[in-house]
Amino acid sequence: MPASRADGRAVDELRPITITRGWSGQAEGSALIEFGQTRVLCTASFTEGVPRWMKGEGTGWVTAEYSMLPRATSTRSARESVKGKIGGRTHEISRLIGRSLRAVIDLKALGENTVVLDCDVLEADGGTRTASITGAYVALAEAIEWARGQKLIAANAQPLKDSVAAVSVGIIDGTPMLDLPYVEDVRAETDMNVVVTGAGDFVEVQGTAEGAPFRREELDALLDLALTGTAELAAIQRQTLTTSSEDAQ
Amino acid sequence: MPASRADGRAVDELRPITITRGWSGQAEGSALIEFGQTRVLCTASFTEGVPRWMKGEGTGWVTAEYSMLPRATSTRSARESVKGKIGGRTHEISRLIGRSLRAVIDLKALGENTVVLDCDVLEADGGTRTASITGAYVALAEAIEWARGQKLIAANAQPLKDSVAAVSVGIIDGTPMLDLPYVEDVRAETDMNVVVTGAGDFVEVQGTAEGAPFRREELDALLDLALTGTAELAAIQRQTLTTSSEDAQ
Amino acid sequence: MPASRADGRAVDELRPITITRGWSGQAEGSALIEFGQTRVLCTASFTEGVPRWMKGEGTGWVTAEYSMLPRATSTRSARESVKGKIGGRTHEISRLIGRSLRAVIDLKALGENTVVLDCDVLEADGGTRTASITGAYVALAEAIEWARGQKLIAANAQPLKDSVAAVSVGIIDGTPMLDLPYVEDVRAETDMNVVVTGAGDFVEVQGTAEGAPFRREELDALLDLALTGTAELAAIQRQTLTTSSEDAQ
Amino acid sequence: MPASRADGRAVDELRPITITRGWSGQAEGSALIEFGQTRVLCTASFTEGVPRWMKGEGTGWVTAEYSMLPRATSTRSARESVKGKIGGRTHEISRLIGRSLRAVIDLKALGENTVVLDCDVLEADGGTRTASITGAYVALAEAIEWARGQKLIAANAQPLKDSVAAVSVGIIDGTPMLDLPYVEDVRAETDMNVVVTGAGDFVEVQGTAEGAPFRREELDALLDLALTGTAELAAIQRQTLTTSSEDAQ
Amino acid sequence: MPASRADGRAVDELRPITITRGWSGQAEGSALIEFGQTRVLCTASFTEGVPRWMKGEGTGWVTAEYSMLPRATSTRSARESVKGKIGGRTHEISRLIGRSLRAVIDLKALGENTVVLDCDVLEADGGTRTASITGAYVALAEAIEWARGQKLIAANAQPLKDSVAAVSVGIIDGTPMLDLPYVEDVRAETDMNVVVTGAGDFVEVQGTAEGAPFRREELDALLDLALTGTAELAAIQRQTLTTSSEDAQ
Amino acid sequence: MPASRADGRAVDELRPITITRGWSGQAEGSALIEFGQTRVLCTASFTEGVPRWMKGEGTGWVTAEYSMLPRATSTRSARESVKGKIGGRTHEISRLIGRSLRAVIDLKALGENTVVLDCDVLEADGGTRTASITGAYVALAEAIEWARGQKLIAANAQPLKDSVAAVSVGIIDGTPMLDLPYVEDVRAETDMNVVVTGAGDFVEVQGTAEGAPFRREELDALLDLALTGTAELAAIQRQTLTTSSEDAQ
Repeated sequence: MPASRADGRAVDELRPITITRGWSGQAEGSALIEFGQTRVLCTASFTEGVPRWMKGEGTGWVTAEYSMLPRATSTRSARESVKGKIGGRTHEISRLIGRSLRAVIDLKALGENTVVLDCDVLEADGGTRTASITGAYVALAEAIEWARGQKLIAANAQPLKDSVAAVSVGIIDGTPMLDLPYVEDVRAETDMNVVVTGAGDFVEVQGTAEGAPFRREELDALLDLALTGTAELAAIQRQTLTTSSEDAQ
Repeated sequence: MPASRADGRAVDELRPITITRGWSGQAEGSALIEFGQTRVLCTASFTEGVPRWMKGEGTGWVTAEYSMLPRATSTRSARESVKGKIGGRTHEISRLIGRSLRAVIDLKALGENTVVLDCDVLEADGGTRTASITGAYVALAEAIEWARGQKLIAANAQPLKDSVAAVSVGIIDGTPMLDLPYVEDVRAETDMNVVVTGAGDFVEVQGTAEGAPFRREELDALLDLALTGTAELAAIQRQTLTTSSEDAQ
Repeated sequence: MPASRADGRAVDELRPITITRGWSGQAEGSALIEFGQTRVLCTASFTEGVPRWMKGEGTGWVTAEYSMLPRATSTRSARESVKGKIGGRTHEISRLIGRSLRAVIDLKALGENTVVLDCDVLEADGGTRTASITGAYVALAEAIEWARGQKLIAANAQPLKDSVAAVSVGIIDGTPMLDLPYVEDVRAETDMNVVVTGAGDFVEVQGTAEGAPFRREELDALLDLALTGTAELAAIQRQTLTTSSEDAQ
Repeated sequence: MPASRADGRAVDELRPITITRGWSGQAEGSALIEFGQTRVLCTASFTEGVPRWMKGEGTGWVTAEYSMLPRATSTRSARESVKGKIGGRTHEISRLIGRSLRAVIDLKALGENTVVLDCDVLEADGGTRTASITGAYVALAEAIEWARGQKLIAANAQPLKDSVAAVSVGIIDGTPMLDLPYVEDVRAETDMNVVVTGAGDFVEVQGTAEGAPFRREELDALLDLALTGTAELAAIQRQTLTTSSEDAQ
Repeated sequence: MPASRADGRAVDELRPITITRGWSGQAEGSALIEFGQTRVLCTASFTEGVPRWMKGEGTGWVTAEYSMLPRATSTRSARESVKGKIGGRTHEISRLIGRSLRAVIDLKALGENTVVLDCDVLEADGGTRTASITGAYVALAEAIEWARGQKLIAANAQPLKDSVAAVSVGIIDGTPMLDLPYVEDVRAETDMNVVVTGAGDFVEVQGTAEGAPFRREELDALLDLALTGTAELAAIQRQTLTTSSEDAQ
Repeated sequence: MPASRADGRAVDELRPITITRGWSGQAEGSALIEFGQTRVLCTASFTEGVPRWMKGEGTGWVTAEYSMLPRATSTRSARESVKGKIGGRTHEISRLIGRSLRAVIDLKALGENTVVLDCDVLEADGGTRTASITGAYVALAEAIEWARGQKLIAANAQPLKDSVAAVSVGIIDGTPMLDLPYVEDVRAETDMNVVVTGAGDFVEVQGTAEGAPFRREELDALLDLALTGTAELAAIQRQTLTTSSEDAQ
């Protein structure tokens, strides 16, 4: 008997994915990404120059900041700016997004330029970190394209070595499932976030036993699902980026 | 010769105004408000109970928090959560929004309930504080409606005494003008934010000489313009709120 | 029947005003200003040079910081240094004082010099922000005089374009009144702070409906009162500054 | 040709591991753990009661805090207490240690008691987070034993469901290796931390591509090495805990 | 040849001391104390009740906070509220003042009441911590008197066991001197702050070698001077407190 | 009848003192110092260059930071990094250690180099600040020796003018005693920390009346005891430093 999901999806099926390029008129690159009810606004800010400690080495820098609006969730959370400090979860996710994007960028080819990726969760229904990575890639690609147009990077430079996308997988009632919304996420015995390149190699694998420890076979099943999901996401990213941003709006 | 504006508007003309009710699926009330390129997401979080220092007095509480996404503007600003403190401007605007909304709410009729209004600027092109007030009123009205449906406030209670809207006005090259976008705002000799009820009375008048001090006649001309603009905004608010939120989406 | 006030003043009468020049032996300019029981120590610190982001433009900078001693009020408040952050009210008033003083100073004529105005409230009985602005002007004028003596600004430079003073006005039981002490301030339906130059033009108009919104006629009556009050304050400032600081002590 | 390592170890060989039970005379449980030059002092503080939001549910709480002495590393780092905030890395590791220990504890059997595990790195030479988890388990087991002696938990309660240990693995010059010291860690193309129970199931798998993304076969080889290493660590933990703490000192 | 001092004083002579009781109209006790150019406003805030961790023990609490206005000194210092944290020096002095006052108060006789002493330095010319202690005692005595009048402490309760005063002493060019102004303080080889009761016993002795270490005989000479100075201060305190605060103003 | 102490020591007897040189493999100088159950890890970090405000003056800088591990004491304290600020006690002790070490160092002879002394209390049983000073001296001497070996300071430069050690003394039940462990410290009527050079001169004398004020004779008796104790500590320091650090490990 196949496991049934609240929203009727198959266990290896993604939620409806929408990526709107160029959502913000201010940033060099931007994308509003939706994984079902999860909505994240990703912007890429491209600036010439690098932090002082990197100057003169001829390489660029890519970093990321993640945040949630206070009412992205079903009950309101206090703002981190009001609390005066950033929580561990925010730090952890910001670092994960940054590492994931740096894995597909050739910092030498970027030249002495900096890209800051801001991922602000407007609505949260599970999978906000994986949606952020997937959307940030599109914003980054847009910003690179913009910089090439501005001649801030050489015409033949290829800073993007590959695409990158991420998805969550988990075991619920013993069944491995793809792309968990909030109601599934809180019930998952094991929860895993997997970041994969367009070529299908791993950038990050973060699996956590929330209830019982997990066995090697379970880990393998989750990785299989994740590779399926990220391959689909990579296809959507490619399609989004071949549409001009003017059409997309 | 009439003064000309970059975007071709008349001096007493608002930018295109759009208010999308129920934009967020999570909050009890929400509105995405657009004044031209300025876009603010306003959510209203309704919770039972009041802060401890107000308990047992039978009155409710309404407060507001304003914030800008780091890349709402043409160059990126550091997050206040990362800096570890909230700047003076953010504090000032949050307080202004809160006072403005409290001016039209009957806290007794609200009962011992709290509404927090979050105004997050997604894109900023001048007038973010006045757009926030105008949008927050719609989110607040939606949340009150929701609370009545949930029987959290009495069926015959009328917590909203009136509507409230706000607009910026300013003097540019000697000419008073309505609803300034960023390019006008930075050139204004005098800048004024005016908050007005649906009945046309003042809630806040904040005029600042950016260059030369202003004369009494100039102040009068600015107030006239502001009353014109807020009357139009009040009409748009009414229209938005008579549409069901399902239609609006 | 004329409205009566707790302290027997007429509705258009200021409290006793005292300005003691040169109160502090350390600062380049200083004044202890008293509006009745409200006492604020204003110092002006003149230093050569400007913040890094302004260097080389040939203009100076004037800024202000406002603070209250913990026991300036009838019950003790926690220190902001102990809380580790500055509250919104403090930020708002510091910014208001800075803007008000900058409105009467010619930053070009000041040269690449910085003046920081510190307004520390020793006792608070209403009107601390307007007393601060009025006293800070005297401290600023003293510091400019000192700098001319030190040849830090040219003998013929006129950095001060005009004087500036401020007063609070409000509507109590329907009657507009001038210069509110604390007992009146808490009862005011509308509260307005008005900053006016020696020439009688407006620098800031900040009116807030504390209870019911206010009508245009009420606003006009409050502005009339404020102009009367600030004209008197300007006369006191002039008189104070023509006395030598040695005599004043 | 077998890959050679700076310290002459085989690729699947742990550094010399030492665990000294009861190192601190103050805590209910403690262990000084050494993985080669990496030295971490782990203490377990057992207190009756739980945080307020957990009261009355009959379950306990286990949490962890990780920190490095400023001169644990080859150059001095600023203290987080002096900087006034905790960095993302510290947060991330503290959370990882806490989750890892909670995976093997039956919070119901612990009763309404709290155990805080402090892992303070005295010297750092790679693998501080995995040493912390491995040492914290010993300190936790000691504290549980102590609590049973004090009759704070029932004589027949078994709060510890299993042991837990962790190790780092990585790919260096294409070769998967076990337990990386700092010199290897900085050169690793892929770096993985694996947390495993005494029974050989996974609690956490955190793999990160530092250079090139990694393939499925590489992931598998790393997991094999990690299972070998954690099995050895589990044996050392068992041996340590069967020695009385008096003997150990 | 006797050592000569910049201000012509003898080596064992205090600067002119002025204590103005009841300087603030808001606090239960207050004193403006002047040691030459050093001016400190001391207020005592008396409130019923004690911090939560002391409730029900029948004893009161006395604590102190010290702070300097930014322009108390010859060059302006940044405010600690703006820096977001309190410096070590401020902490140290606040603790010293609190301990010194608690040494002469019978917390049992005070009952479950709290007195907070705020010492705000308006002008600093050396000896601000010793002036603070000496002035805070007067403010405390006034507040105790006030509380007795309010029947918040029993008519026959004697919370004050003795008076307390403090003075700085130091060795300059080999000569021990009493009550150092700033110009002497920066040149002192050894600097000592001594807190002494009315009965002539020591509450605190804090001696620091700023240049060369000091010998036992030097320490003895400094203690002799300090006892002379504090005896004079105790007499001035007594005289101040026998004057009614109405007369004093 | 001689006063008896819990641990059977004579009133003028130190606890067993152990100093282990070179405890840390990372720092330029280090010492684990034990005063009975009190254990402090002292490291000295030697770096070329001085803070910006000291550059070009040809003198070096020595500073210190003190901290306690959260479970150094019998109950766990919250980490200051988690609280986001450093407490007054920590600040006070860090400053005391820094001043004490600077008293014996010739900053000119040190050249433009900086030494940071970190004193981290691993276990606390009274006297942690005096143990820190005594141990920090050994770490500092080791670092100076290392720097001479590295030719970072001239072969004939003598930055260390003397040694420095510290001890606590106190009056318990009327009897002056040397080197108080925690159980005695909490009962002491007077508590004094004394810092003394190898030559027997005073660097710091900090006496505090915890209960009743203390008389001159009591102060004298305490100073006598302190001189005895610090002379013994100076001998142990000398002996430790003549052993090579290789032997010591």
